[in-house]
Amino acid sequence: MTDVAASPADLASSSFFDAALAQLGPRGVTRDADLIDPWLTDWRGRFHGKAQAMASPATTAELSALVRLCAEHGVAIVPQGGNSGMVGGATPDESGEAVLLSLRRMNAIRELDVSGRKVTCEAGVILQTLHEAAEAQGLRFPLTLGGKGSATVGGLVSTNAGGTQVLRHGSMRALVLGLEAVLPDGQVLSMLTPLKKDNRGFDLKQLLIGSEGTLGIVTAATLRLVPAVAERLVIWAGVPTLHAARKLLLHCEDAVGEALEGFEVLPQASLEAVIDLQPATRAPLTEPHPWHVLIEVVADTAGAAGLAGRCEAMLASAFEAQLLDDAVVAMNESQAEAFWLIRESISAAERARGPAVQHDISVPVEAMPAFIEAAVPRLEADWPGTEAIAFGHLGDGNVHFHVIAPPGTDAAAWHRGDGKAISRQVHDLVTQWHGSISAEHGIGQLKRDELARLGDPVALDTMRRIKAALDPKGLLNPGKLI
Amino acid sequence: MTDVAASPADLASSSFFDAALAQLGPRGVTRDADLIDPWLTDWRGRFHGKAQAMASPATTAELSALVRLCAEHGVAIVPQGGNSGMVGGATPDESGEAVLLSLRRMNAIRELDVSGRKVTCEAGVILQTLHEAAEAQGLRFPLTLGGKGSATVGGLVSTNAGGTQVLRHGSMRALVLGLEAVLPDGQVLSMLTPLKKDNRGFDLKQLLIGSEGTLGIVTAATLRLVPAVAERLVIWAGVPTLHAARKLLLHCEDAVGEALEGFEVLPQASLEAVIDLQPATRAPLTEPHPWHVLIEVVADTAGAAGLAGRCEAMLASAFEAQLLDDAVVAMNESQAEAFWLIRESISAAERARGPAVQHDISVPVEAMPAFIEAAVPRLEADWPGTEAIAFGHLGDGNVHFHVIAPPGTDAAAWHRGDGKAISRQVHDLVTQWHGSISAEHGIGQLKRDELARLGDPVALDTMRRIKAALDPKGLLNPGKLI
Repeated sequence: MTDVAASPADLASSSFFDAALAQLGPRGVTRDADLIDPWLTDWRGRFHGKAQAMASPATTAELSALVRLCAEHGVAIVPQGGNSGMVGGATPDESGEAVLLSLRRMNAIRELDVSGRKVTCEAGVILQTLHEAAEAQGLRFPLTLGGKGSATVGGLVSTNAGGTQVLRHGSMRALVLGLEAVLPDGQVLSMLTPLKKDNRGFDLKQLLIGSEGTLGIVTAATLRLVPAVAERLVIWAGVPTLHAARKLLLHCEDAVGEALEGFEVLPQASLEAVIDLQPATRAPLTEPHPWHVLIEVVADTAGAAGLAGRCEAMLASAFEAQLLDDAVVAMNESQAEAFWLIRESISAAERARGPAVQHDISVPVEAMPAFIEAAVPRLEADWPGTEAIAFGHLGDGNVHFHVIAPPGTDAAAWHRGDGKAISRQVHDLVTQWHGSISAEHGIGQLKRDELARLGDPVALDTMRRIKAALDPKGLLNPGKLI
Repeated sequence: MTDVAASPADLASSSFFDAALAQLGPRGVTRDADLIDPWLTDWRGRFHGKAQAMASPATTAELSALVRLCAEHGVAIVPQGGNSGMVGGATPDESGEAVLLSLRRMNAIRELDVSGRKVTCEAGVILQTLHEAAEAQGLRFPLTLGGKGSATVGGLVSTNAGGTQVLRHGSMRALVLGLEAVLPDGQVLSMLTPLKKDNRGFDLKQLLIGSEGTLGIVTAATLRLVPAVAERLVIWAGVPTLHAARKLLLHCEDAVGEALEGFEVLPQASLEAVIDLQPATRAPLTEPHPWHVLIEVVADTAGAAGLAGRCEAMLASAFEAQLLDDAVVAMNESQAEAFWLIRESISAAERARGPAVQHDISVPVEAMPAFIEAAVPRLEADWPGTEAIAFGHLGDGNVHFHVIAPPGTDAAAWHRGDGKAISRQVHDLVTQWHGSISAEHGIGQLKRDELARLGDPVALDTMRRIKAALDPKGLLNPGKLI
C-alpha cells in the first residue's frame, strides 16, 4: 500500500474544513463540486472561479463563527447572494483557496412593522419575496430591477443597487434604515434599530452600504416601506432631441413633483431593435421620433386625488411649449405594462444584434444630453462600423451606453481587442465629464483596474487605508473593488 | 543685555507660526489674543480652551498648505465654523498647543444652479445667507434651526445637523450632494460634482458627514435645493396623551403624505412656562390639554392645489376618530409665526426656571410615547424635587429631555453632582430603549465619555480603527468624539 502524500496546503485546508464542519454541520458547509459549481460563474458568464468549499450558515451567529475560523486559518471569503450581479463581484478567483459564502439560507423576514412602515430582512431574502410580503400588508418596497427574482437583500445593500424607481425613492442607500453585519474579525456590528436621527459618530452603516463585501458581510437590514400605489399613469412621448427630453423632465418635475417616479429615454434605433426582435411589439406612437421618453407618475392614496387631471394638464402645457412632438397615456394596466416591456426588452434586443460592450455610466443630470451628443458620434467615428446606443434613466443622469461591434465580427476576439479599447475610451470620456464609470452596477472584478486607472488618487488612497484598517489580512472578497 | 531663553516648545511653535505666516499672510494667521479669545469659549459657555494661534485661510489651497504644515510640525487643528455647536466640538483643549482653524473667511457661494436645483457653498457660508440666496431664485434650502444666523455650512455638514424640517427633508446628510474636504495629511478630496448615482466604492462623503472634523475638514459642499413654499398651513392641536399624538402623526402622514413637514409636541407645563416668561403669549387653544401638537403642512406650487381642503378633511376625520380634543388652524402668517414662536421659546422659558440638564435623545419613533411615559416619572421619583420635561420632534423620534433642578438649588454644585448623575441615568435609559444619546447635537467633548461608556464596543472599535488609519498622528480635532 502506498500513501498519497498530502501537501501542507491540503492539510491546512482540510483542518479548516473540519473545523467549519464541526461549527456549521453538513448543511452549513460542503466540498461537493455538484453543489458548488453552479455558483462559480457570474450572472453574465464572464468570470469563472474556484472555491475550496461553500459555506451556507443559517444564522448570524454561525456566520460570525465561520468568519472567526477563516481569520484564524487565513482563508479568504467571497460572499454571494443571488449571484445576479453584473461585475463579477460575487465570483471567487481561480486559485480555489477561498470559501464561497452563500447567504441564501439566511432568508427570514424577521419583522414587518406595518404602522412603522419598515421591515427587517435577513441577507438572503429575495427581492421579489420582499415585494410580495410588503404588498400583502398594503405597503410597497419601492426598489425594483430586472433580477428581482434572484437578487437578495444582502446583495442589494452591498452593491447599493439602483433600478427603475431611483428618481423618486433613491438607490438602496436611501431605503436602508438599519444594518447588521459581520466584520472581518468575526465581530457582529448591530445597527438594526432604525433611528431617524442619530449622531453618535461616524455613520458605519453608510460605509458598509456599497462596499461590495470588502469591509463586512451584511447579514440583515431594516428597510423603509412606502404606502402601496393607488394610482399610476404611464406615458410615452416622442421628442426631437435629448435636450428636449431634459426640458420635458424639468417640466414634469415642476408639474407633478414627487409623483414622478420614472423618466426613461431611448433612441428610435432601440425601439426598432425591440420590434425586430419581438415583431408583436406595437410602437406606442404612430410616427417615428429621434428620441422616446417613458414617463411614470405614481401616487399613494393621499396623493391620488386629481393626479390624472394634473398629468393631462402637464402634457397639454408641454405640448403647447413644444417640449414634445407627440404623447400617449396608457389607457389601462396592460398597455402600461406593454410600454414598460419595450423598455425592459432593449438589452435583449441589443444582444440579438451581435457582440457589444456595455457601460453603466452617469454624469450630472443636466450634462447628460450634451454628453451623449458628443460621445455617440465620437465613438462611431473612431471605431468604424460600430453603433453606439445610449438609453435608460435620464432622470438620474445614468444611462446604459452600449457600443455594438461591426456586423460579422468574431465576438471573442473583438471583446479581447477593440471592445476593451472602446470601453477604456468610454470611461475616459465619462471621467473627463466628471462622471462615474459605475453608476449602479458597482466595481467588482470587471471594473477594478479601470477604477485604479481613473479614480481620484486621493479617494483611492483613503479607501485602501480604510480597507487595511478593517481587514488587515485582506480576507474579505479579495480582488474586488480595490 | 540678557537674552530671555526660549524653551524648545516655544521655538518649535514659533517656527510653525513663521512658516504658517509665510504661507497664509497676516490675514490668514494670527497670535493676537484679542482676535482669538472670543472663539475659545463654546456657544453654551461650558468649555473654555486655549490656542497657540488662529488660522483663517481664504481658499482650499491655503487650507491644504496649512494642514500639511501642521502635519509636519505635529500641531493639532481644531476646525470651527459659526461656533454655535451644542457639545463643545469646536473648542480646543486647555493645553494651548492647537491651532484654532476658522473657516469663516471661506464664505463664497461658488455656484447656484437654478434649473439643477443645487448650490455649491464654501464651508464658511452662514445658513441664513444660504436661505436668502436660494429664496432670491425662487428656491429654498429646507434645513433650518435656531442658530441659523451663525451656523455655517461646514459645521452643519460636519455635525450632520438636524432642525425642525427633518421629518420631511431629512438631516444635513440627506441634503449633501457633493463634498470637498482637506484630509489630515493635507490632501484635498474633491467630490463636489453631484452624481445622482455613483457606485465607485466606499462612499467617503457619507463617512465625513457627521464626523465632527475628526477625519477631514469640510471646505465646500454641493447642496440640494427644493422649490419655494407656495402654501403653508400651521395647526395647533390638543391631545390627551403622547400615544394619541403618535396616532395623530400616523393619521396626518396618511392624509397629506409628504406635505407634512413638522410635527412637534410639548406638554402643558412647557406652554405655561412660555406664557410665564412672555405674558403677551396667547395660548392657541382655549382649554388646557395634557399635550399640545404643532403641525406644519407645506406644499410647493405643484402640490398646493387643494392642500387647504385636504388639511380640513384631515382634521375633521381626526376629530371624528377622537385622535385630538381640539385644534385650530393659523388664520394667517402672523398667527402661524406666533404658534412657532411658542415652540421656539420653550428652551428660554425652561432656562428661566433654574438650572437644568438637557438631553438631545432619540428612540425609534413608535417607542417615544412609551419611553417618555416611563422615563419622566422614573426620573422625578429618583430625584425628588426635579421636574422632567420632554418636548420636540416627535415625528423624528427625537425629543429634548430636560430635567430641571429642585427650586433654589445652587447651579454650579448641582451640575457637578446630581446633574451629572441624572444625565448618566437618562443616557442609560435611552440606551436600554435602543436609542441614541445624541440625536442631533453630536458628541464633541460634552458626550465623549458617555459615548465611550455606552456605545456599542464593536462600533467604537471600528471607528477608532478608521480614525487611526486616516489620522495616524491624531491631529484633527483631538479630544472630540472618540
